[in-house]
Amino acid sequence: MRTDKDYQNRLYSYKRNIYLKGEKVGRDHPSFQPGINAVSENFRLALNPQYQDLFTTASHLTGKRVNRFNCPPRSIEDLLKKIECVRALAQYLGGCALRCGGMDSLSGLSVVTREVDQEFGTDYHQQFLKFLQYMQDNDLVTSILLTDPKGDRSLRPYQQADPDMYLRILEKKSAGLVVNGAKLFGETAVQDELTVAPTRAMTEKDGPYALSFSVPADYDGVTILCKPVQAPKRKKIKAPYADYGYPGITITVFDKVFVPWERVWLCGEWKYAGRLSSLVALYHRTSYCGCKAAVTDLMLGAAALVAEYNGLEREKHIREKLAHLAATAEQVYACGVTGAVKAKPSSSGTFIPDPIYINAGRYHAGMNIFHEYETLSDISAGQGINLPTEEDFLTPELDHFTKKYIKRKADVPAENIWRLFRMVDEMLYSEQAGFWQAAGLHGGGSPVMERLTILANYDMDAKKSLVKRLAGII
Amino acid sequence: MRTDKDYQNRLYSYKRNIYLKGEKVGRDHPSFQPGINAVSENFRLALNPQYQDLFTTASHLTGKRVNRFNCPPRSIEDLLKKIECVRALAQYLGGCALRCGGMDSLSGLSVVTREVDQEFGTDYHQQFLKFLQYMQDNDLVTSILLTDPKGDRSLRPYQQADPDMYLRILEKKSAGLVVNGAKLFGETAVQDELTVAPTRAMTEKDGPYALSFSVPADYDGVTILCKPVQAPKRKKIKAPYADYGYPGITITVFDKVFVPWERVWLCGEWKYAGRLSSLVALYHRTSYCGCKAAVTDLMLGAAALVAEYNGLEREKHIREKLAHLAATAEQVYACGVTGAVKAKPSSSGTFIPDPIYINAGRYHAGMNIFHEYETLSDISAGQGINLPTEEDFLTPELDHFTKKYIKRKADVPAENIWRLFRMVDEMLYSEQAGFWQAAGLHGGGSPVMERLTILANYDMDAKKSLVKRLAGII
Amino acid sequence: MRTDKDYQNRLYSYKRNIYLKGEKVGRDHPSFQPGINAVSENFRLALNPQYQDLFTTASHLTGKRVNRFNCPPRSIEDLLKKIECVRALAQYLGGCALRCGGMDSLSGLSVVTREVDQEFGTDYHQQFLKFLQYMQDNDLVTSILLTDPKGDRSLRPYQQADPDMYLRILEKKSAGLVVNGAKLFGETAVQDELTVAPTRAMTEKDGPYALSFSVPADYDGVTILCKPVQAPKRKKIKAPYADYGYPGITITVFDKVFVPWERVWLCGEWKYAGRLSSLVALYHRTSYCGCKAAVTDLMLGAAALVAEYNGLEREKHIREKLAHLAATAEQVYACGVTGAVKAKPSSSGTFIPDPIYINAGRYHAGMNIFHEYETLSDISAGQGINLPTEEDFLTPELDHFTKKYIKRKADVPAENIWRLFRMVDEMLYSEQAGFWQAAGLHGGGSPVMERLTILANYDMDAKKSLVKRLAGII
Amino acid sequence: MRTDKDYQNRLYSYKRNIYLKGEKVGRDHPSFQPGINAVSENFRLALNPQYQDLFTTASHLTGKRVNRFNCPPRSIEDLLKKIECVRALAQYLGGCALRCGGMDSLSGLSVVTREVDQEFGTDYHQQFLKFLQYMQDNDLVTSILLTDPKGDRSLRPYQQADPDMYLRILEKKSAGLVVNGAKLFGETAVQDELTVAPTRAMTEKDGPYALSFSVPADYDGVTILCKPVQAPKRKKIKAPYADYGYPGITITVFDKVFVPWERVWLCGEWKYAGRLSSLVALYHRTSYCGCKAAVTDLMLGAAALVAEYNGLEREKHIREKLAHLAATAEQVYACGVTGAVKAKPSSSGTFIPDPIYINAGRYHAGMNIFHEYETLSDISAGQGINLPTEEDFLTPELDHFTKKYIKRKADVPAENIWRLFRMVDEMLYSEQAGFWQAAGLHGGGSPVMERLTILANYDMDAKKSLVKRLAGII
Repeated sequence: MRTDKDYQNRLYSYKRNIYLKGEKVGRDHPSFQPGINAVSENFRLALNPQYQDLFTTASHLTGKRVNRFNCPPRSIEDLLKKIECVRALAQYLGGCALRCGGMDSLSGLSVVTREVDQEFGTDYHQQFLKFLQYMQDNDLVTSILLTDPKGDRSLRPYQQADPDMYLRILEKKSAGLVVNGAKLFGETAVQDELTVAPTRAMTEKDGPYALSFSVPADYDGVTILCKPVQAPKRKKIKAPYADYGYPGITITVFDKVFVPWERVWLCGEWKYAGRLSSLVALYHRTSYCGCKAAVTDLMLGAAALVAEYNGLEREKHIREKLAHLAATAEQVYACGVTGAVKAKPSSSGTFIPDPIYINAGRYHAGMNIFHEYETLSDISAGQGINLPTEEDFLTPELDHFTKKYIKRKADVPAENIWRLFRMVDEMLYSEQAGFWQAAGLHGGGSPVMERLTILANYDMDAKKSLVKRLAGII
Repeated sequence: MRTDKDYQNRLYSYKRNIYLKGEKVGRDHPSFQPGINAVSENFRLALNPQYQDLFTTASHLTGKRVNRFNCPPRSIEDLLKKIECVRALAQYLGGCALRCGGMDSLSGLSVVTREVDQEFGTDYHQQFLKFLQYMQDNDLVTSILLTDPKGDRSLRPYQQADPDMYLRILEKKSAGLVVNGAKLFGETAVQDELTVAPTRAMTEKDGPYALSFSVPADYDGVTILCKPVQAPKRKKIKAPYADYGYPGITITVFDKVFVPWERVWLCGEWKYAGRLSSLVALYHRTSYCGCKAAVTDLMLGAAALVAEYNGLEREKHIREKLAHLAATAEQVYACGVTGAVKAKPSSSGTFIPDPIYINAGRYHAGMNIFHEYETLSDISAGQGINLPTEEDFLTPELDHFTKKYIKRKADVPAENIWRLFRMVDEMLYSEQAGFWQAAGLHGGGSPVMERLTILANYDMDAKKSLVKRLAGII
Repeated sequence: MRTDKDYQNRLYSYKRNIYLKGEKVGRDHPSFQPGINAVSENFRLALNPQYQDLFTTASHLTGKRVNRFNCPPRSIEDLLKKIECVRALAQYLGGCALRCGGMDSLSGLSVVTREVDQEFGTDYHQQFLKFLQYMQDNDLVTSILLTDPKGDRSLRPYQQADPDMYLRILEKKSAGLVVNGAKLFGETAVQDELTVAPTRAMTEKDGPYALSFSVPADYDGVTILCKPVQAPKRKKIKAPYADYGYPGITITVFDKVFVPWERVWLCGEWKYAGRLSSLVALYHRTSYCGCKAAVTDLMLGAAALVAEYNGLEREKHIREKLAHLAATAEQVYACGVTGAVKAKPSSSGTFIPDPIYINAGRYHAGMNIFHEYETLSDISAGQGINLPTEEDFLTPELDHFTKKYIKRKADVPAENIWRLFRMVDEMLYSEQAGFWQAAGLHGGGSPVMERLTILANYDMDAKKSLVKRLAGII
Repeated sequence: MRTDKDYQNRLYSYKRNIYLKGEKVGRDHPSFQPGINAVSENFRLALNPQYQDLFTTASHLTGKRVNRFNCPPRSIEDLLKKIECVRALAQYLGGCALRCGGMDSLSGLSVVTREVDQEFGTDYHQQFLKFLQYMQDNDLVTSILLTDPKGDRSLRPYQQADPDMYLRILEKKSAGLVVNGAKLFGETAVQDELTVAPTRAMTEKDGPYALSFSVPADYDGVTILCKPVQAPKRKKIKAPYADYGYPGITITVFDKVFVPWERVWLCGEWKYAGRLSSLVALYHRTSYCGCKAAVTDLMLGAAALVAEYNGLEREKHIREKLAHLAATAEQVYACGVTGAVKAKPSSSGTFIPDPIYINAGRYHAGMNIFHEYETLSDISAGQGINLPTEEDFLTPELDHFTKKYIKRKADVPAENIWRLFRMVDEMLYSEQAGFWQAAGLHGGGSPVMERLTILANYDMDAKKSLVKRLAGII
């Protein structure tokens, strides 16, 4: 397994194919640093004996101890540990672990490559397992890339005026495919490999869009457009919360990219496009049942600490809100646990969690995220937003103003107050906060997607039958 | 195990000690019939091979197959089955099973009698196990009676002007106790035995109020005041939904009642009053994670059927609401499952579910119940409330009006429409509906109680520590 | 102006054309009494000098002082007083005044009859004014009847398999029309006159359904099917709240009814069907801005009194909920006031309130009604539902149980406690409560209808233009 | 009246007393520019004949046409126009007008200086009117400064360990006062004058804290600590939305500042501290009834335009959300209108709006603000956050990627799409967005403050009496 330095050195060696604000930059650009810091912690913790059980597992391919994020779940236990692991890591980082997506796309592919082979006699699964072992052995980080640009949203892929509105097979060659198009969303600037899968179910006419493969992040023909997300900036009063962050949102363009057959996971088998898309989403929403609980854990911890510093922690109406936050975190997590407990093995041996509970969990998180921000803003009474700047706080001639006027309870030092409210300010009112709100609502699929998935899997007729019997309708 | 007839015959043989609207009546009074019908189904289904695995289990005392409602859970499996069993029964009855409370008070007592013995060297547990075996062998139904009248809510039990505001030990005798007071809420008119436990934690001065015991429902000195809940009344167009119902809410008065020692479960050990009270509530909230999910199942089934009959089942905004109902049902249930999965054995071998998840589940149900009523009323557009009465619907000379003007889609017979909307009317707009709304909000403890219980069990310091580390506060 | 006795005597003299549970009954059937009591109060208060300014006004036709409920608003002042009057009356009755609908259909007709005449050269308006003067001079009560049975909801009126699914013109004769069909919802058992109007906009092919007229409630060919709503029943401990109530919901069938021309208000002018329908709804929603505020006033008063009796009125979380109820009542009312302040005169001189504010007010009320029930149930902690029955409370031998165990604060007599919680029980958990919940959600149009009306009247392009300018989009 | 240039030139001439990130800077620092742009528009529009009626009014002191923001309302009409004016200006600026606070503190002072004079025979009012005329004649901008640092929130002002936790009178001299302390929140970097008033009601012992006065913004002893709020930054694709912004939140420190008597408005008359504080808040919440409606107008306009560009504007579930936004805007505004309509004159002739409606309006806005952000994020589906950066969008070699992959409907140019989603990104996901969320929740007083104010002014006994009569409680 790699050290954080190994990860960083390899990353910094990649070809320059990222545009950041009009410039071509290397992975060592400071804008990516908060994201690289976050991913690096995963490598550090995986080597830490205390976290080993959670963050690593024995590969079912080689038996070697490898990073859990490169392992599709082989049991209910694996699924439960995955959720724990994601929650613990997000708690530690104060936000996104940036690695779940890769685990989730690998998990989905480990199921579907086998199912396609079973139906069509293809040979995707063995190729995929080789790739999986390569990922495990080299301890690499891959992505989840699903969302296409989509163009006119009222038209299907094959109906678009511009045929590239969904990533597509341009040409089949003996050695592989040529593909063209783009994938939106992702954090590909800090990842080693790019794994793509369809964004939706396809019809027969959409065949060329039923496409999945993996290529290295700096591969020929790949261009990454990165929109940075400003992480909190600290000069001297450092804090882990301000060290980690999002490395920027990317549009990953595949401009006539050649993919060799041993890296292709779906190629025109349109009947399985929706299956793959929904399975990757399902695994990702399972991760969310851990990470969104962690997001709430942090909101809760911050709100409780603010209440303590303000001397209001015994107030009933504050406690009511803290309890509601705690309940929300655990309801989301409980849906994840139940989805894991009710998981079933697929033909490849990978376990598939129950879609109803997983979607109910992610849905609940998405429906509550803005209210959670409201609660922390409410309990902290907007105080973070009026904090002296770090520079003013550190200007000795202003001490009589800055340290004096932020004091609260006598036994809490001014610096602690500053540190807490600065973090609250960064959590709630920064550019990054805006990004996390959007991620909280839409990441892994907006609530509307979970509602659709629940309905698609729910036995509504059984519920109608209960009522028919009770009403005496024959 | 008893048949439904056995249950009814024994019930009808009880001494007349119930007041109903100013009159002393027998258990065969028609007002109790809907409740007796509901309980009877449990006996019928327990003898039905299809339901046997869910509704019965092997006694850990005798190894004999007995009704699950008389068995404290001895494993995670038992807890999971208990939730399934309650959900299935509530789905079948279209409402309350009327038996969970007894299971839940027996479960709590099976833990606490042992713990008290361990601390004080008393002999409650063996006596209790004898009683439990008596319950199992005779297949009896007992109650959950916790709530005292409480008088002035700002005073503790021992401070009340009238010392009977909480049920208390009046006198200790060699053969047993004399007790005095009352317990509010319950459905004791259709139960064989009365089991009581404290409603709250007690202090040393509240000693005489730390009291738990069981006596037969028609025991000397027991008077039951019953406030009936009008069940839906049908004349000719019968339906199971209208056959089952609530037998009336009771105030059970204990007027200088003598309880022999072999029926006493707590007698002054005030340190365990809160433990017993909160454990019984915990087991009862576990039941709610099943039954409240069933309540939502019925709302959902009815709403889906209304949408179908109205030809609106594909409408997006209707489907959004159906999905939300489904998600709510499964979120509540998932909290129950997770509470069971994370259960731990007590010293007596009875398993105790995790209080955080169970309370988060019951809390979620309570917070959503009115909105669920709103959703069904919304989707059914108030149509049930304007339905022709049963008598008008059956008056042939009005056929041209009644059957004609309730028609919707051509292929749905007028009678089916009438049956569905009549049930919707009974579900939403009847006296019984009002009762179930209150039960949905308060039964097993109002949301405020679950918030307090979550906070009491939650490791808030751990959450603050996460934030302190991230903020750099030492 | 009539006395309450005048109103009752005339009502009792009407021909028997009401079916109640399969029987043909007179207006003196006890089932209608609570509704008659409510209407009677309006007559009593109109003669009470204290209420005269609010409940009566000078007729613009005759200059005579007449009941405000028979007067279309001729000014902003009239609209403001109308809202006050409805709020005051609903506060006094603890619920529906049962007279607003008539005022609102007369108001809509006073506008549209003139507009139709202006476009088509017809003579509806003068005929209508004669009818209006007849209503004023005889101080009669009329209805609001809009909702048709509608049959298959995916088809327009003229497309229905059964052409009577919307009330229609069967035949035009020299002396008048023959009409056939039915109208759902209404309280026609206690009204003197039936006024009907279309339920929706019509297309040219729907011509025969563009129909409005008035006939006496016991007119030839009219049959009323009444579904009773059980009002609270008291035996000895009387209270005004239990005296008033809803007289039953009616389906009013028009079976080949002949309507003379002088009672016809719309007859095939399909372009004005939607105008009339939406204006009557607008006036009715204006009434709701008063009556729904009053509904909340009662919830608030009851909750505040419960908190006082329980000694919890200073608790912050209780006060938070009371403030929220107060804010909701006044937000609804403020929308009504603003709708009135921004009213404009129509060509007939009748003032039309601003549809956006009126609909925003009714919408807000509808969106909050279930939450208000939840709040009162929450603050009263389900206590009403476990109250001793009236008969038990009055049984002297049970005094030691009933009066003893409902006591709270020392200075509040047991009877006051009983009276308050009995009223709370009736407000929340009775059959009537279910009816008012439905009325609160759907009466005057469900929230979905107000959303549609707001959108239909809102200048959305102006809002888009604001954004275009700010975004620099030309 | 001044031109925008006059305003800017005077501002730039002020003494350097602002600290920005550790440096002392002039008002011409670029960080303040977006705020200065916003204020400048007010000067420009006031000279624009089209806006004159709204933005200016005749001074009641001199009869001259002056800026409305320097005029306390002398009539209901003035109050209605003030709300219109604020809504129009906030719509135009896409956010805060930065001038309402001054109008609101002047309005409150115009009432209270007179009332204090009446009780104590002081001479504040005439001095204040001179100052008001000076403000009007010179067309200056003043502030609303209420919030003190407060220190330990469980102690009153006079109990604090550090006596400066609330701004206080340090010494009275013959020519004026010496004051010490600080005021939190405000935008004093772009204002000419600083007007301060107490933050809360005071007791007799808090006398030295009952203090109000005005001094120039660069006055001796005044130090301003400014925490910047990053406005959206555009390089080439300019847009008005990105030109305006918040100039930074200030802590204004008064370090032994001397205030001459002719600038003192309250000086120890502790009984009027609460009156002044609550009146200034009331006027400010009246402004919010206009500006919060405008905030929603912009959310609505943006959401509607996104739906149009995405081709989803006819979707029912989208329209449902648009209607809800429109209703919220108008409910808030209607509360403002009703508060104005029910205003009463004070002894000074200034009109005081009704506190219940104004607080109900601001409360409703505050309770809904996060949900509005959620709605816009939901409808725009997080798309803004993945937009190519401006620099990438303008890089010709990337045209084939950036312009290609953001296309939607054929007839909407890529630049318009970019402009709209860029503005949405700035509205939702920027540092500034976080600031406006906090302002939307807390500005003018958090919802908890409005609840308290409503309760303080509400006749709760009247509501209890309604219920007592109906319940028959004497």
